[in-house]
Amino acid sequence: MITRMSSLFLRTLREDPADAEVPSHKLLVRAGYVRRVAPGGYTWLPLGLRVLRNIEQVVREEMDAFGAQEIQFPALLPREPYEATGRWTEYGPNVFRLKDRKGADYMLGPTHEELFALTVKGEYNSYKDYPVTLYQIQTKYRDEARPRAGILRGREFLMKDSYSFDLSDEGLSESYQAHRDAYIRIFERLGMEYVIVSATSGAMGGSASEEFLAVAPTGEDTFVRSTESGYAANVEAVTTPAPPEQSTEDKPESQVHHTPATPTIQTLVDHLNGAGLGRTFTAADTLKNVLVKTRKPGEKDWTLLAIGLPGDREVDFKRLEAAFEPAEVTLLDDADFARNGFLVKGYIGPGALLANGVRFLVDPRVVRGTAWVTGADKADHHVVDLVAGRDFTPDGVIDVAEVREGDPSPDGHGVLVAARGIEIGHIFQLGRKYADAFSLDALGPDSKPIRITMGSYGIGVSRLVAAIAEQSHDEKGIIWPRNVAPADIHLVVAGKDEALLAGGEKLAGELHAAGLSVLLDDRPKVSPGVKFKDAELIGVPTILVVGRGLADGQVEVKDRRSGDRTDVAVDAVVEHLVGLVRG
Amino acid sequence: MITRMSSLFLRTLREDPADAEVPSHKLLVRAGYVRRVAPGGYTWLPLGLRVLRNIEQVVREEMDAFGAQEIQFPALLPREPYEATGRWTEYGPNVFRLKDRKGADYMLGPTHEELFALTVKGEYNSYKDYPVTLYQIQTKYRDEARPRAGILRGREFLMKDSYSFDLSDEGLSESYQAHRDAYIRIFERLGMEYVIVSATSGAMGGSASEEFLAVAPTGEDTFVRSTESGYAANVEAVTTPAPPEQSTEDKPESQVHHTPATPTIQTLVDHLNGAGLGRTFTAADTLKNVLVKTRKPGEKDWTLLAIGLPGDREVDFKRLEAAFEPAEVTLLDDADFARNGFLVKGYIGPGALLANGVRFLVDPRVVRGTAWVTGADKADHHVVDLVAGRDFTPDGVIDVAEVREGDPSPDGHGVLVAARGIEIGHIFQLGRKYADAFSLDALGPDSKPIRITMGSYGIGVSRLVAAIAEQSHDEKGIIWPRNVAPADIHLVVAGKDEALLAGGEKLAGELHAAGLSVLLDDRPKVSPGVKFKDAELIGVPTILVVGRGLADGQVEVKDRRSGDRTDVAVDAVVEHLVGLVRG
Repeated sequence: MITRMSSLFLRTLREDPADAEVPSHKLLVRAGYVRRVAPGGYTWLPLGLRVLRNIEQVVREEMDAFGAQEIQFPALLPREPYEATGRWTEYGPNVFRLKDRKGADYMLGPTHEELFALTVKGEYNSYKDYPVTLYQIQTKYRDEARPRAGILRGREFLMKDSYSFDLSDEGLSESYQAHRDAYIRIFERLGMEYVIVSATSGAMGGSASEEFLAVAPTGEDTFVRSTESGYAANVEAVTTPAPPEQSTEDKPESQVHHTPATPTIQTLVDHLNGAGLGRTFTAADTLKNVLVKTRKPGEKDWTLLAIGLPGDREVDFKRLEAAFEPAEVTLLDDADFARNGFLVKGYIGPGALLANGVRFLVDPRVVRGTAWVTGADKADHHVVDLVAGRDFTPDGVIDVAEVREGDPSPDGHGVLVAARGIEIGHIFQLGRKYADAFSLDALGPDSKPIRITMGSYGIGVSRLVAAIAEQSHDEKGIIWPRNVAPADIHLVVAGKDEALLAGGEKLAGELHAAGLSVLLDDRPKVSPGVKFKDAELIGVPTILVVGRGLADGQVEVKDRRSGDRTDVAVDAVVEHLVGLVRG
Repeated sequence: MITRMSSLFLRTLREDPADAEVPSHKLLVRAGYVRRVAPGGYTWLPLGLRVLRNIEQVVREEMDAFGAQEIQFPALLPREPYEATGRWTEYGPNVFRLKDRKGADYMLGPTHEELFALTVKGEYNSYKDYPVTLYQIQTKYRDEARPRAGILRGREFLMKDSYSFDLSDEGLSESYQAHRDAYIRIFERLGMEYVIVSATSGAMGGSASEEFLAVAPTGEDTFVRSTESGYAANVEAVTTPAPPEQSTEDKPESQVHHTPATPTIQTLVDHLNGAGLGRTFTAADTLKNVLVKTRKPGEKDWTLLAIGLPGDREVDFKRLEAAFEPAEVTLLDDADFARNGFLVKGYIGPGALLANGVRFLVDPRVVRGTAWVTGADKADHHVVDLVAGRDFTPDGVIDVAEVREGDPSPDGHGVLVAARGIEIGHIFQLGRKYADAFSLDALGPDSKPIRITMGSYGIGVSRLVAAIAEQSHDEKGIIWPRNVAPADIHLVVAGKDEALLAGGEKLAGELHAAGLSVLLDDRPKVSPGVKFKDAELIGVPTILVVGRGLADGQVEVKDRRSGDRTDVAVDAVVEHLVGLVRG
């Protein structure tokens, strides 16, 4: 295909759009790939649509390659199936809802678990039908509170969502692995730098779950990665390694100390270090007991819960919420403290908690034999050398303390550092939640029903356009990976005389005949300087310049990424470029 | 591509779905192409999605071929642009409306004139930029009062909509013609039987307009066509040929007759024929004067209007509405008659109308010199031999009488017959309505603004799947045209033994290697009879049967449409089939 810029519906912009903050947003607008229509709603202009379709095609090929079958659901979905799973309500304001002319409720689908489950139930009934994996590449809708960063977080976007249906947990694991492998191939083909992080499940409710994050400093998601291994995880999914247990035999007796005016960890540590105990304490030696209350969905009453963690760490609320999901969890308020007189605020210790039946969970670092400074359940008093497993026995472990750079990597190699990424894929073992909601069973060989187990897998296809631009650009513009670029070759006719234009047209024709797609800058009244700037902004990886050298049989091939220029004989350039593109 | 039915997500049905009335709906559901999710909302199953994509690709290729450029808008559209053109209100209940979490108004786009106009305005400003034609293939939404016939009239559907932008009326005509030619190529490639009918414009407001109708007895649209020429038109667009004018000299004087109890045309004719006037009258000799009132948009008061037409014809209200659009038009009620005492109901004649300043328009057949029996503006009295151009002079002509089979074709060849069709395409010279609304101008060579003129062109892509099935099926199932079929070859392994299955797999591999797509019925536990029935239902045009003959080196090639079977040597069958498909 030859696309002539003289007639292409494209106007590049020299200025960044006023509402753009991240590089991909600025560059995709400036280079004429997308235009904003509404908050989170974008139009794909011709070159943008090509990039989007290129990505879509890579995704489709890799899905088809492992036997997934493409179907397509409506985006306008009736309420009933979502009522059956409780999600009509759960989605809250994040979903667009509407009524039809008869007053029936609909939503614009943000995800399609219910309909996939119902569809499989409608078609299949025997164990011989399974396993099956279905997918769609479809426009989805979410009423984001803050649509931002252009197409990175839109309200209307293109997603590949797929669902696996298996007879057994082992089958689900295999389907999950098949998706994981396909996703790796997809992101490799798209030339992305990404990590796979363990993730918690979000609102979908299930077990194994990993996210693919495109590494980008502008990403919304934070994650941690090891300095020495391939380990990476969402902060919510980091597991803190427990230190070895210690003997309780050799520990001194616990002692209560009068510690006036020490409501905070720092004042406590300062007091103790000035108390002449012959030891130096740090915040990490103290055990902070944080009181929360939890409530399961549908329950009326809250349950008290205490979390004991080293005093140098705060509770990470995202980790806390993830740990209790789908239950609610919140800090105690003053009225709660008033109702529970045994809680001496600022001086709470394991003693009063355990004596009063408050469930007491501790950080993984609070192993048997560790000695702690903690509250003595009496105003202005703390206890020193309270030993876990000797002086108190927690009800269990909870891993919700903040994760910090420098913490040891859970896999034992290196330490953790923080990074940011853009979620581009998510794979997730849903389990039987949706099958249970719709009684999705297969009739087994013994004529007994087998409850189906599902996996759910997503790729943000339109978001990938931005994620790739976010990873692959410089100050001059975008630099597309070859598999994604809107053309194979950007051919710049660098001059206005007829011979150059004719030479450019001839070369474009030859490249086209050789199977390459060409973006031909044949604009008659545009200076070479402006054409070069546009080429760099648009970001086709290889730029062919037809200029004065043509008279001497020379053209110039420029690599967009490195900026390297090579003079090539015009007779040899087609073969040269085919080699570059195909190689 | 080889698609194995042993794992294909497909279950055919032996029974018609309960809600299906038309053949395409029944067969597309039974053959497993689509499934209903909600009223007017359908899921595309794997084979259905392939057919849809095949059609989409033909449309895309022909649009690209004449230089139209593909872009894509969101479906979720903000209110403002539609407010500017008045269509936010005009659409009434036919559009899905919703609010986002901040209370802002949105609609699900039924058509995109506004956004295309705004987008071109945003990018282009010089006359040198024009003309340009843009298109999208996109999911559209209409809240149909009665979604019916499966995907034939859905509420969520795939459309190709395109818009041309020109500097002049001549340019618009050329863009219109380019679309018309492309549509002809598209529908030819899709193997459709269609007619192009002149159409009125509907709610879009403009001038030249034609519809492409797929001829089908189940179609919602009626049209008329000539028995002897290619003439076809929507009933609203038929122009009645005027007979030659006659001399008024040789006509007898008009005479008022007492015609008691003749409130209807039939009673009047009967009375006159029994009155001994020496002549026989028919209803066609009478002039019926129908009183209506009209009101332009935004006006408060109605204006009286009389329509004179031969008494053997009724006013066709669709034609009447089309003639006055966008004004309203309705029959007079009793109060209107009471207010206008000169109107003697049942006996209204041109005399009182013209004397009282009522605008009087007549059917094209009421030419100068024709003599009529009509009301004498006095109860129980009619006038005979009232001659147009001598005894009364109408204010003009209006062509709103019903069109009947047997009427002469407007092109002078043959007579009209009625037929039904499915609207599959619409091309339409919009003019400057939207350019005016948004001040879409190009800066001319003299630096003066040139108002742009637009065309609007649509093809119902998903509807075409049903329209083709509607035209191409028999009692056994669908018969897809080759360019549309979900596979090139349906290969049936007619038996259960291993050798047959191996032979089928080998042939499928060879066909695939030769570039054909194969739907391979390799289901191990399904009888040949069921496989044959499914193949006929699914409708791939060529069926290859691998059965007992394989042992003797023979396979059978069956033509789905004719039912003809041919034995072919297995060594020669790949070449034979490539010839069939590519030929």
